[in-house]
Amino acid sequence: MYPVVPGHEITGVITKIGSNVRGFKVGDRVGVGCLAASCLECEFCKSSQENYCDQTQFTYNGIFWDGSITYGGYSKFLVADHRYVVHIPDNLPLDAAAPLLCAGITVYSPMKENKMLESPGKKLGIIGLGGLGHIAVKFGKAFGLHVTIISTSPSKEKEAKQRLGADDFIVSTHPKQMEAKKRTLDFILDTASANHSLGNYLELLKVNGTLVVVGAPDKPMELPSFPLIFGKRTIKGSILGGMKETQEMMDVCGQRNIKSDIEVVKTDQINQALDRLSRNDVRYRFVIDIACKSAKM
Amino acid sequence: MYPVVPGHEITGVITKIGSNVRGFKVGDRVGVGCLAASCLECEFCKSSQENYCDQTQFTYNGIFWDGSITYGGYSKFLVADHRYVVHIPDNLPLDAAAPLLCAGITVYSPMKENKMLESPGKKLGIIGLGGLGHIAVKFGKAFGLHVTIISTSPSKEKEAKQRLGADDFIVSTHPKQMEAKKRTLDFILDTASANHSLGNYLELLKVNGTLVVVGAPDKPMELPSFPLIFGKRTIKGSILGGMKETQEMMDVCGQRNIKSDIEVVKTDQINQALDRLSRNDVRYRFVIDIACKSAKM
Repeated sequence: MYPVVPGHEITGVITKIGSNVRGFKVGDRVGVGCLAASCLECEFCKSSQENYCDQTQFTYNGIFWDGSITYGGYSKFLVADHRYVVHIPDNLPLDAAAPLLCAGITVYSPMKENKMLESPGKKLGIIGLGGLGHIAVKFGKAFGLHVTIISTSPSKEKEAKQRLGADDFIVSTHPKQMEAKKRTLDFILDTASANHSLGNYLELLKVNGTLVVVGAPDKPMELPSFPLIFGKRTIKGSILGGMKETQEMMDVCGQRNIKSDIEVVKTDQINQALDRLSRNDVRYRFVIDIACKSAKM
Repeated sequence: MYPVVPGHEITGVITKIGSNVRGFKVGDRVGVGCLAASCLECEFCKSSQENYCDQTQFTYNGIFWDGSITYGGYSKFLVADHRYVVHIPDNLPLDAAAPLLCAGITVYSPMKENKMLESPGKKLGIIGLGGLGHIAVKFGKAFGLHVTIISTSPSKEKEAKQRLGADDFIVSTHPKQMEAKKRTLDFILDTASANHSLGNYLELLKVNGTLVVVGAPDKPMELPSFPLIFGKRTIKGSILGGMKETQEMMDVCGQRNIKSDIEVVKTDQINQALDRLSRNDVRYRFVIDIACKSAKM
């Protein structure tokens, strides 16, 4: 529905509260992610898995309760339903906490669901070192996993290991490197949004290993059956997390000082930032500081 | 490795026993499936998941212990290692039991692994009504599942429901039927060996539903990410079963009188049977009666 105004990792300070709202007060530091509304009635809404309600409405290009179209976070004020708002821990800056509301929960939820966070020493591969991938490295290392980045860009190895603390790095386009790591990983988080085939990645998993898809390539991925069946492997999908889990993730980030690596831009730099984003030229998320009027990039 | 002699669902009567073999005696009715040998040393061999050993050798076109090539079951006698032999219950005919050794265990193992056999009332979809699919219907109904056949062939509906006892039937090429059954199934067993896309099938699963691939299409399947991630769905691979589990499956079939529907052919009808097989014209497995010299088809 055009015009679309995006922005779905939104943080700020509460300026006004509805009369029936409990748990929030004016001045609270809070965040709103992708979800603006859901049906409130289904089994998923009732168990705080609102993200799997089939009537979710997103914070942009969705339909809010009153029938209005949602216009995202590129704005000075946002009206949100308290059910879809979380508290930001005091020690997390609002800008570096913002990407946790989508990128963060998107990787935290399947990591928890698949018991990665209670498996210190197990081997996690992360496909793609971008907005999602770099936060997954932080969760992985915080919970004691052995983390391998699997990337098409050899140039990211130094960054991955030295700055983010990844333990290993595989160039996915390098057949010998891929061959050498067959049947070595317990888990893979696939954050790649470019089109790709899953076959070679599945071969990296041990028998019974699990690959979780959290990216959303626009074309179908290729799934050859042999690496799936001969390794009794599992592929799971996951999108976002429920609201209770999003608050839990935010609290974990507060306790362990996990935040997104960001580049802050001002409102007059948005188009420039979108251009760079289309070239994957960002470490690792752009955050727009709406309160600040302009600055050079 | 040519020449290839196939045959991997083999039953017969023991005529001779090695001096160190325990648990079998001359005259026993036994079966040999796909596995001829495995490494005996790895974690999978040690836990009777020989099917996931990465050095398995098959009963045809494999390399046996002595270095010889395995030539399958198209023969009057077969020398097998006792570790890969199972007993056939007395009440199962040798011919109708034979396909249980591959088709049977291939569907039983993932059905057990994914708790389908302890989920009476849950809804199982089976893609493809062939050798594997028709045995899966029998296991499904024996364990109280609601079974839906998902097929490209509308002509199979009557057979599926009236003779095999399936509860429902969906023509997968019929968009309205597929749409009407969205989010209704707990499990899907995908037995299709033709090339196909998984997207529409995944949509049939409830949130958290599981699709198990047991077929082996020669081209990669298409896997669109949206039905995977928005439904938090799972795709698993599975191939055969371990030897302990194969014996367990055979015993279950004895107790519940589950056998394959077969067409028995004689040795001089093999080429004719292979021709019909290539046209999917068989209900549901050809079994060759090696002991009988010829007959008209």
